[in-house]
Amino acid sequence: MSLLIKNGEIITADSRYVADIYCEGETITHIDRHLSAPAGTEVIDAQGKYVFPGFIDPHVHIHLPFMGTLAKDTYESGSRAALVGGTTTLIEMCCPARQDDALQSFEQWMNNAVGKSACDFSFHMGVTKFDDATAAQLREIVRRGISSFKIFLAYKGAFGIDDTELYRALKLARELGVVVTAHCENETLVAERCKELLAAGKTDPGQHHESRPPAVEAEGVHHLMTFAELTGAAVYIVHLSCREALDEAIAARQRGVRVGIETLIQYLTLDKSYAERPGFEGAKYVMSPPLRDVRNQEVLWHGLRDGLINTVATDHAPFDFAGQKPLGRDDFTKIPNGIPSLEERINLLYTYGVKRGRIDLHTFVNVASTAVAKQFDLFPRKGAIQPGADADLVVFDPNYRGNISVATQHMAVDYSAFEGWPIEGRASVVTVRGQVAARDGQFTGTLGRGRFLQRKPSHF
Amino acid sequence: MSLLIKNGEIITADSRYVADIYCEGETITHIDRHLSAPAGTEVIDAQGKYVFPGFIDPHVHIHLPFMGTLAKDTYESGSRAALVGGTTTLIEMCCPARQDDALQSFEQWMNNAVGKSACDFSFHMGVTKFDDATAAQLREIVRRGISSFKIFLAYKGAFGIDDTELYRALKLARELGVVVTAHCENETLVAERCKELLAAGKTDPGQHHESRPPAVEAEGVHHLMTFAELTGAAVYIVHLSCREALDEAIAARQRGVRVGIETLIQYLTLDKSYAERPGFEGAKYVMSPPLRDVRNQEVLWHGLRDGLINTVATDHAPFDFAGQKPLGRDDFTKIPNGIPSLEERINLLYTYGVKRGRIDLHTFVNVASTAVAKQFDLFPRKGAIQPGADADLVVFDPNYRGNISVATQHMAVDYSAFEGWPIEGRASVVTVRGQVAARDGQFTGTLGRGRFLQRKPSHF
Amino acid sequence: MSLLIKNGEIITADSRYVADIYCEGETITHIDRHLSAPAGTEVIDAQGKYVFPGFIDPHVHIHLPFMGTLAKDTYESGSRAALVGGTTTLIEMCCPARQDDALQSFEQWMNNAVGKSACDFSFHMGVTKFDDATAAQLREIVRRGISSFKIFLAYKGAFGIDDTELYRALKLARELGVVVTAHCENETLVAERCKELLAAGKTDPGQHHESRPPAVEAEGVHHLMTFAELTGAAVYIVHLSCREALDEAIAARQRGVRVGIETLIQYLTLDKSYAERPGFEGAKYVMSPPLRDVRNQEVLWHGLRDGLINTVATDHAPFDFAGQKPLGRDDFTKIPNGIPSLEERINLLYTYGVKRGRIDLHTFVNVASTAVAKQFDLFPRKGAIQPGADADLVVFDPNYRGNISVATQHMAVDYSAFEGWPIEGRASVVTVRGQVAARDGQFTGTLGRGRFLQRKPSHF
Amino acid sequence: MSLLIKNGEIITADSRYVADIYCEGETITHIDRHLSAPAGTEVIDAQGKYVFPGFIDPHVHIHLPFMGTLAKDTYESGSRAALVGGTTTLIEMCCPARQDDALQSFEQWMNNAVGKSACDFSFHMGVTKFDDATAAQLREIVRRGISSFKIFLAYKGAFGIDDTELYRALKLARELGVVVTAHCENETLVAERCKELLAAGKTDPGQHHESRPPAVEAEGVHHLMTFAELTGAAVYIVHLSCREALDEAIAARQRGVRVGIETLIQYLTLDKSYAERPGFEGAKYVMSPPLRDVRNQEVLWHGLRDGLINTVATDHAPFDFAGQKPLGRDDFTKIPNGIPSLEERINLLYTYGVKRGRIDLHTFVNVASTAVAKQFDLFPRKGAIQPGADADLVVFDPNYRGNISVATQHMAVDYSAFEGWPIEGRASVVTVRGQVAARDGQFTGTLGRGRFLQRKPSHF
Repeated sequence: MSLLIKNGEIITADSRYVADIYCEGETITHIDRHLSAPAGTEVIDAQGKYVFPGFIDPHVHIHLPFMGTLAKDTYESGSRAALVGGTTTLIEMCCPARQDDALQSFEQWMNNAVGKSACDFSFHMGVTKFDDATAAQLREIVRRGISSFKIFLAYKGAFGIDDTELYRALKLARELGVVVTAHCENETLVAERCKELLAAGKTDPGQHHESRPPAVEAEGVHHLMTFAELTGAAVYIVHLSCREALDEAIAARQRGVRVGIETLIQYLTLDKSYAERPGFEGAKYVMSPPLRDVRNQEVLWHGLRDGLINTVATDHAPFDFAGQKPLGRDDFTKIPNGIPSLEERINLLYTYGVKRGRIDLHTFVNVASTAVAKQFDLFPRKGAIQPGADADLVVFDPNYRGNISVATQHMAVDYSAFEGWPIEGRASVVTVRGQVAARDGQFTGTLGRGRFLQRKPSHF
Repeated sequence: MSLLIKNGEIITADSRYVADIYCEGETITHIDRHLSAPAGTEVIDAQGKYVFPGFIDPHVHIHLPFMGTLAKDTYESGSRAALVGGTTTLIEMCCPARQDDALQSFEQWMNNAVGKSACDFSFHMGVTKFDDATAAQLREIVRRGISSFKIFLAYKGAFGIDDTELYRALKLARELGVVVTAHCENETLVAERCKELLAAGKTDPGQHHESRPPAVEAEGVHHLMTFAELTGAAVYIVHLSCREALDEAIAARQRGVRVGIETLIQYLTLDKSYAERPGFEGAKYVMSPPLRDVRNQEVLWHGLRDGLINTVATDHAPFDFAGQKPLGRDDFTKIPNGIPSLEERINLLYTYGVKRGRIDLHTFVNVASTAVAKQFDLFPRKGAIQPGADADLVVFDPNYRGNISVATQHMAVDYSAFEGWPIEGRASVVTVRGQVAARDGQFTGTLGRGRFLQRKPSHF
Repeated sequence: MSLLIKNGEIITADSRYVADIYCEGETITHIDRHLSAPAGTEVIDAQGKYVFPGFIDPHVHIHLPFMGTLAKDTYESGSRAALVGGTTTLIEMCCPARQDDALQSFEQWMNNAVGKSACDFSFHMGVTKFDDATAAQLREIVRRGISSFKIFLAYKGAFGIDDTELYRALKLARELGVVVTAHCENETLVAERCKELLAAGKTDPGQHHESRPPAVEAEGVHHLMTFAELTGAAVYIVHLSCREALDEAIAARQRGVRVGIETLIQYLTLDKSYAERPGFEGAKYVMSPPLRDVRNQEVLWHGLRDGLINTVATDHAPFDFAGQKPLGRDDFTKIPNGIPSLEERINLLYTYGVKRGRIDLHTFVNVASTAVAKQFDLFPRKGAIQPGADADLVVFDPNYRGNISVATQHMAVDYSAFEGWPIEGRASVVTVRGQVAARDGQFTGTLGRGRFLQRKPSHF
Repeated sequence: MSLLIKNGEIITADSRYVADIYCEGETITHIDRHLSAPAGTEVIDAQGKYVFPGFIDPHVHIHLPFMGTLAKDTYESGSRAALVGGTTTLIEMCCPARQDDALQSFEQWMNNAVGKSACDFSFHMGVTKFDDATAAQLREIVRRGISSFKIFLAYKGAFGIDDTELYRALKLARELGVVVTAHCENETLVAERCKELLAAGKTDPGQHHESRPPAVEAEGVHHLMTFAELTGAAVYIVHLSCREALDEAIAARQRGVRVGIETLIQYLTLDKSYAERPGFEGAKYVMSPPLRDVRNQEVLWHGLRDGLINTVATDHAPFDFAGQKPLGRDDFTKIPNGIPSLEERINLLYTYGVKRGRIDLHTFVNVASTAVAKQFDLFPRKGAIQPGADADLVVFDPNYRGNISVATQHMAVDYSAFEGWPIEGRASVVTVRGQVAARDGQFTGTLGRGRFLQRKPSHF
């Protein structure tokens, strides 16, 4: 099977040119102008369109038992949504509960994906406890192709680890060359503030951000930075949301700490006033860290533009507004956390980033694909358009105009946080290893064709 | 004329793959495996070698009347040295004296280069005074293809401008989308400290850095940052040398100031103890800002690795040790400033950066080529390996072992600051727009073939 | 002549006790409980009242030719107002124009005060140019009892000095042990922004703060800090108004720079919305640095409480709203700068500081008296309640309630910026060297009795 | 009983004058020149000497079961040593183990002191666990006159509390107006690093500081600062040792956190090279936080001078070099921590601070007495020289010259960390509430006369 994408303007992090891309089997084999193709080749006309490397979402939840319920997407729905939105690879958080066995959990998460996903995938292995047995299993998991851990400073009891575990997990990561991704919020501060708010009768969704102000996140970041500095481990801050946290991370980088910084499309486009919407509407916008004061948006956009922030993810975690968010109707701490956006990340980043002049096209590709691939050992198989790379390509129509709506989305959730928002550009064609998996907002791929990506540690 | 580079491992900022590169005329036209070439094509075997985009030195002096003498290189010697060292494009500082006419100076600098240079070139247009007539000429110079200015906070009287001129130059730059590069040292502090040192009988080369400690540079950076913040201009700090200055620049970036940061290969590899060498030997190592305490090296390497620092240049300014440096034998303030390194930047950066594990190959290419091209509106004509880009390529042999020596260098200066230093890797073949201009340390190009690169402002 | 103040609660920076104070001639001679006094002694009952050391305003303008007009107060009116408000010593800025002779100016300023002032006084000697002749005169002025200089980074052409002058003035100050007080705003930024605003038709008083945003002041502070660091001089930032400037000063203090920080009662109580009042009302609130966003008030109060800020002054500069402020009716840059408050500083600081719980009584005394006396070499003659100290005392009634009004003020200006503001506490009795100079809002002193205070440098 | 101190130069934080001080019973009753005294009054000639308020050491251990042994001093030896050295009040850390009952512990600590101490005393109540029962007991302890808590971020298991306890302890403190003093080192980092060092065979005393580098302390400070910011509690950092920690504390102060900062005389005068002395000699210099790189000394002295650091204490913890320090001969983690200096704090601070020109006399009094008294609700009973204050006075001879030696010290420990150090000044006479308790290096007081000082919370 072969595929020829003709006349598109190829845009990568460091190149921009018009050429045809020829893919044989799963791989890009030729990039040249005026390529001709043998009979039987599927030909896509990309004239007037951009061709990007397939986008990678480094922070996704699919199987997510959380707060007594289960996130709505499966790999079937999730990978469909991802692909329609131009994301050809996702990295899921494998989050065993503390009492669970790491290796078994890994295998369980793997089982949820293998044979079901339409897009490629990998996992950050959640280190939700750390002892000798777990360490041995983590080594095995790394051997099986996982080169990143995930730790939580929040959610103690559920996923969170204590300082001794943190130190040892970082040391193991340092030894193995694995990068440690981290949710940086101080658990205790959140828990205590939640109690205070509830005790004061403050139970509505708009209290959620009051329970975890910027200082809570900045504290988490500072804590991680110290541990990274003293262990020498490479770390990566997931879902950074505000100036205070960014300042702590940059200060550490200035001290020589190796730290990647991820923000989310939600923090770039939404703010806490959404979570304060009347009635229970705000529950749609409850996630952690919470949406912040709108002034942080400019800080984050500038951070992307100037290289202070490295990647843009979603922390996709879809819970229904009708059936699940109401678990917290009388108690905001029980609202399942998450603002679904796996499907819309790229369109939003393009529209509100590139089109608004906040970032350029190369930065756009970099933060949503290439830098992710490099950070997580997928490069240059992913994140690059070059002979030999996987033929994960996004033919993107910058002239498309439309609006986001739950009515047309593929995520298995009953609302869109961006309902009615205009979008200026969309993927026309999305390929995964040479196969067209989405076209003009419709999934055309093959469930189960998605492959687990083995990754080799590099952060020594 | 056509050229085929076969079997090299192409390394760019965001790709890595083995392929052949075919160049027709001056341009890369095909990149593919197993390309065949018509008869008459020059074929270069790059098996086992890297192929990099031609490197760009964004900060070079060729025609440099300074401290009563003239830097030694001409475009003939300078472009030869650049090419042998893998640098296929250089951006020269066009530095009229305050009393000179901007447009005439620009034409004079242009005349020095056109018809003489073997490599491509552009200029940063020095704004060494600012008035209505100069503003009109600057607009004309921008129309002619210059998209960057250079200003000096140091060298008042000679090149330096006052605050009013600075503000207005930045505003004009903002209006035109031009980036303003800046030498950031407070002039007065240097002048006063020099007087104090000389008055105290401290006249040797080792006093030079005492006359301009880190606070002097940090002050300059802070000053520029404020003016950039209030005018909205995009700026670029040349030859940043120390932590104190970097901290000021990063703080500004955190406030949203658009600032590129350049360090020099000298600051990455040398330190102030060189300037303190006995006898007059230290004079070889006198430049401004001066070499710093060795602890700054790690700060700068980490800055490159982590994206805090964007580019690596040379501030090439060659003055003979025998005939020119001695102008300051009894008075360090009269030592012509400069540590020649146009020829050795890439070899040093590769050996002491990549081979020592401080930066990876992609960062290496980025800071010495791609990021420079993007910053200065040369991308993707330069700084990229893609069809349609200029065929400026460096076939680099990572197995080469040798030593730096004045005996073998092409720079027209009588010493090497790196005499005897081992080098682990070197350009085997360097092409400029499809022509082989250097091979294995020998110049094989054509003087006068180098072309002025017209650049279009983009920093709106 | 003798005076006995009975039963007051003596509050100093480091003591609090009930005792009588007996003053003979100009001096406190006994402090004890149950003192009895010889016949003829004036006895003041301070039962239920505080007794503070006389307050010192370290930043006052009396003779102030500025922007083509002259501030309204003379020493007659000014010292009256000071005393009624509890200020027994003021330090006036002696501000010669650049073309003026320093020594002659000093003598002129002295002449304006001697024989006229009812309160004691000294001067900060303005260094508005610096050359050999001026240096010699400054040495003479220091010999005559002046131990502080004043320099301006703003008002270039009028009072401002250039960097060379700044460096040399600081070096002379360092040599003589003199502290250098400084107005820290970058002149050029202000001038250029004023031009832009006026060119855009923005001429109203509310534009004044737009012409000099916090970055302008922070730049000035950073600049002074660098020069202080490199010369070793002790410096003092007058009228610090905002967080950005404070952050720069504290950062320098953390590097070891000897810097005192003064804020003004206006910045603690007013904000920029006052200057934005409709009509021309805002002109009453035009001063430099300008009133800031209200969020800075908390920063400044905390700074006082925590010792980051050392003193509270007024920068008293009274210009009539009817006859003088209108000079800038069509051009905010021509509005004479100043918000008169010499008379109200203490009452406002007590009411809005102590009574509101922002600072305690000892901090109140310290920042408005003792720390000023120490900073400016008046201690322990002034700023202390101890035998041997000048009998400058303020018997303060914490139970007084009243309102500020132009109708009752003694400053020779036709408006009050605090019209109608409630005051909770006021001086009942104010003494200057043993003589009662004010009672319950009325001046009872003797014009011309005020004495020039010779000060001896101590900042070696 | 009455006492008259004649002709001394009284030096307080804010006054300086020559006068006699008359004390009746335990109290200063008159301060005046030329006081005459009734027969039977003890008269002390202080001509040519300073008279300071009694010094207060805010951080002392007496009863200290630690690392399997017991610190050597009792209240008998400790209070003797304190008094000889000019310290008339000490605040001991009451440190129950986690399993102990707070109230019983308080009573036990009280019992150790009452009837034995020759100087006055109070306690910081260690909060080494926090639950409802403890909270109730803490309220009771506050009612009994304790207005400060002590918490440990280090020594988990022994004294350290977890984050939930920390938050709740701070909230209780906030409610009660109590200040929370804190040992700020991250416990886990220390524990893990100790294991690593020991595993690597690094067992000597010089490894101690390697196990807890500055980042460990800075982490602790940052952590406390966040918790203080979010609870609104007033906090006080004990034994701050280095720039990194100071920077974090000052940054928090700039955000409005109410934080007092204490350094120790040891950090001002010693450095880590002492702990690296050959043989086991270094064990004499093992304490936590550890002695630091010598560059920190200047930072701390400047911090005192400029008001960034508020107090100077000792963290007195005496363990014999012969019999106790050797518990850690083969394992530095078992060396009992402490550098005894209760006796020498004032002499060292005077000699190496005042006499060396680093701080002035008023700052000296303030940081070692007045500011301590204010911070811990002892003012103006202590820390002041005023009628009504306790007659705790130090007649200090600035002309004394001597040397520190274990041979002459009163602390019950077998070495002096300052053996042979010259001292330029010493207390001639020390009084506690009107009784002469030490003279010229000899104890003359009365064991058991020392009184528990009830303190009333003020930090609301």
